[in-house]
Amino acid sequence: MSKVLVSNIGMLATPQGTGPKRGTEQGNIQILKDAWVLMEDGLISQVGAGPAPAAEQTIDAQGKLVTPGLVDAHTHLIFGGWRQNELGLKLHGKTYLEIQNAGGGIQSTTNATRAATEEELTAKAARALDEMLSLGVTTCEAKSGYGLATEHELKALRVIDNLNRRHPMDLVATFMGAHLVPAEYKADRAEYIRLVCEEMMPLVKEQGIAKFCDVFCEADTFTMEESRQVLEAGLKYGLRPKIHADEIEAIGGSQLAGEIGAISAEHLIVCPPEGIESLAKGGVVACLLPATSFYLGAVFAPARDMVSAGVPVAMASDFNPGSCPCLNLQFVINLGCLKYKLTPEEVLTAVTLNAACAIDMADRVGSIEPGKQGDLVIWDAPDLDYICYRMGSNLVQTVVKKGTVMG
Amino acid sequence: MSKVLVSNIGMLATPQGTGPKRGTEQGNIQILKDAWVLMEDGLISQVGAGPAPAAEQTIDAQGKLVTPGLVDAHTHLIFGGWRQNELGLKLHGKTYLEIQNAGGGIQSTTNATRAATEEELTAKAARALDEMLSLGVTTCEAKSGYGLATEHELKALRVIDNLNRRHPMDLVATFMGAHLVPAEYKADRAEYIRLVCEEMMPLVKEQGIAKFCDVFCEADTFTMEESRQVLEAGLKYGLRPKIHADEIEAIGGSQLAGEIGAISAEHLIVCPPEGIESLAKGGVVACLLPATSFYLGAVFAPARDMVSAGVPVAMASDFNPGSCPCLNLQFVINLGCLKYKLTPEEVLTAVTLNAACAIDMADRVGSIEPGKQGDLVIWDAPDLDYICYRMGSNLVQTVVKKGTVMG
Repeated sequence: MSKVLVSNIGMLATPQGTGPKRGTEQGNIQILKDAWVLMEDGLISQVGAGPAPAAEQTIDAQGKLVTPGLVDAHTHLIFGGWRQNELGLKLHGKTYLEIQNAGGGIQSTTNATRAATEEELTAKAARALDEMLSLGVTTCEAKSGYGLATEHELKALRVIDNLNRRHPMDLVATFMGAHLVPAEYKADRAEYIRLVCEEMMPLVKEQGIAKFCDVFCEADTFTMEESRQVLEAGLKYGLRPKIHADEIEAIGGSQLAGEIGAISAEHLIVCPPEGIESLAKGGVVACLLPATSFYLGAVFAPARDMVSAGVPVAMASDFNPGSCPCLNLQFVINLGCLKYKLTPEEVLTAVTLNAACAIDMADRVGSIEPGKQGDLVIWDAPDLDYICYRMGSNLVQTVVKKGTVMG
Repeated sequence: MSKVLVSNIGMLATPQGTGPKRGTEQGNIQILKDAWVLMEDGLISQVGAGPAPAAEQTIDAQGKLVTPGLVDAHTHLIFGGWRQNELGLKLHGKTYLEIQNAGGGIQSTTNATRAATEEELTAKAARALDEMLSLGVTTCEAKSGYGLATEHELKALRVIDNLNRRHPMDLVATFMGAHLVPAEYKADRAEYIRLVCEEMMPLVKEQGIAKFCDVFCEADTFTMEESRQVLEAGLKYGLRPKIHADEIEAIGGSQLAGEIGAISAEHLIVCPPEGIESLAKGGVVACLLPATSFYLGAVFAPARDMVSAGVPVAMASDFNPGSCPCLNLQFVINLGCLKYKLTPEEVLTAVTLNAACAIDMADRVGSIEPGKQGDLVIWDAPDLDYICYRMGSNLVQTVVKKGTVMG
């Protein structure tokens, strides 16, 4: 039995439990001063304050803040290319249509993703994961959804599986064939949806990698009825539903999330009161993506209303090459306070335990408690407020993943 | 003669010249493909494209983007303590007054700065400079202004001078005794202004470190007339005027800047049209601080109107422990595009040449041209658009300062 002790923790801040925290519970975290965490064979075995037990290896936290490893519950990690030229073009006055006609938009990422080999996509995503880890993220969800053709969707999921095996990061895969209707099916949307549900899904099930099925329920993308069709088909193949809802227009996605019992609903920027009610009733985790609101210059999701209504709120990066070329969850933490006006305690729960619940990983990660994985971050910070307040600096001092110091 | 070559530059992007760029000139930068830069004894001696000359040392830019080292023309680098607790208190519903009564606000930073030794302030600022350098900043302005008493203002300026001597960063010092009226003079503002102008300034001149005099011209801080008095006194002691103007309320600071011939005016968030006109007429550089707007949840300065009116626009971090605990100029670059809607080319000029002009350093830094210092950044980026588009990642690959690779 290899025992690793994190000693001399100035402030240990963690939510507790294995289920989502809602309402006043969202901010009700455990704070221990002068604390320590003992890990055995990668799992947390004891947490305490005051005199610490002996261990083979001791990591001195130097009186700093320790939190659970962050959980990024929403990323579009697997894509080819970037789209920086679109920012330049837009700022030089080109319209959306002109950019699209010049080969831009999501379809350009689809083309680049299809053209990339599995090795290329793996190498690129691995670099992103390295950086996410260095920024404090120890568990991450990743979606397919830029392949938009059977072989390329399966390829993206294989990349996620390979990375999960060989990278320290825990990865959880989501199938998102219904990210948008690719160019070649624009004239026959129904046929593309049939392809997703009847051709891709059986193969995704057979492949055995994806745990969730996600759909982009949005005007001009997939209607509420199409989204229902996709998610119900997913359920038949053992894929739990997730849904991109109310990002730009509220067309019923959040209500559908509650009805269908989605594990999480994503974005929710313009979520109406009846949507919030449906999420609360259905026990759906609201997975908010404030860096996308920021990048798009949009409003911010009504996070406080959600907390008040008893919806468990998670926050994630939405890392993708179009609407959020940012994988930094520390910036998301800043936005949780500055834009959502959540308290530091509520924000911590949003990027740890509630995020873990949004991807069904809360039995293993999301809090510092006996029985969970030894995933934690020692911050170059004296307290929790500090990591919410400072901005633009990587405040991570040490990342510990399954009891092992990273980097 | 030690020759250092930066070879294999995919895109070299730089403004040109030693004077501020205004109007359409702000975005009129030089772009060279397949370029190289030759430096001799720390100075740039040749810039070209195609076959490169020989050198003792070659730095392979691997086909990446190269720009001038960034210039941060506005920081409050020298301070004791931090104020993270105020963010937490605010989010838990405490009012500004309650926070101030609990010992918060700028005065708390003044107390911490006075209590700190010169060595403590030096060590703390050095850590910030190390990080700024790693983020691509090679020249930086730093203000006093948290001492607010003769000995502590002089102490802050000595810290800047020491850092300038021993840190690779080029530092330029600004005296800002008129940052606010400290608690002990609340009942006699005129006496504090007298102290700044008649006691501090002669000693600041004698000390010989500060080049500029700055004043916080704002409702409840220093009126326009008081600001004029301070800046005119500064001129008598050889300190060129800078002015914090129009940050919250427009009380005439930008007009004063133009009239008095300030080298730069800072913030300008709510700068009125007559202020813009005055800046243009006076040849004042507008030193915009978008991360502060972001952090305060305020509006953003009318950068486009300024460019259109012929005001040279610079951008800086405003790093300070209250309104902008962010020293990352890459985030400022993002905000320049996303919030000011400046083009990538205009933004580059704002954080290099125009920023250098704002601190009278454009004869030495701010562009990649023969005769200037060998200060440049090799970015992990293929082009200029990319560093404006990506967010939350440190995109610096290598920083070169006076011809020497840093880090």
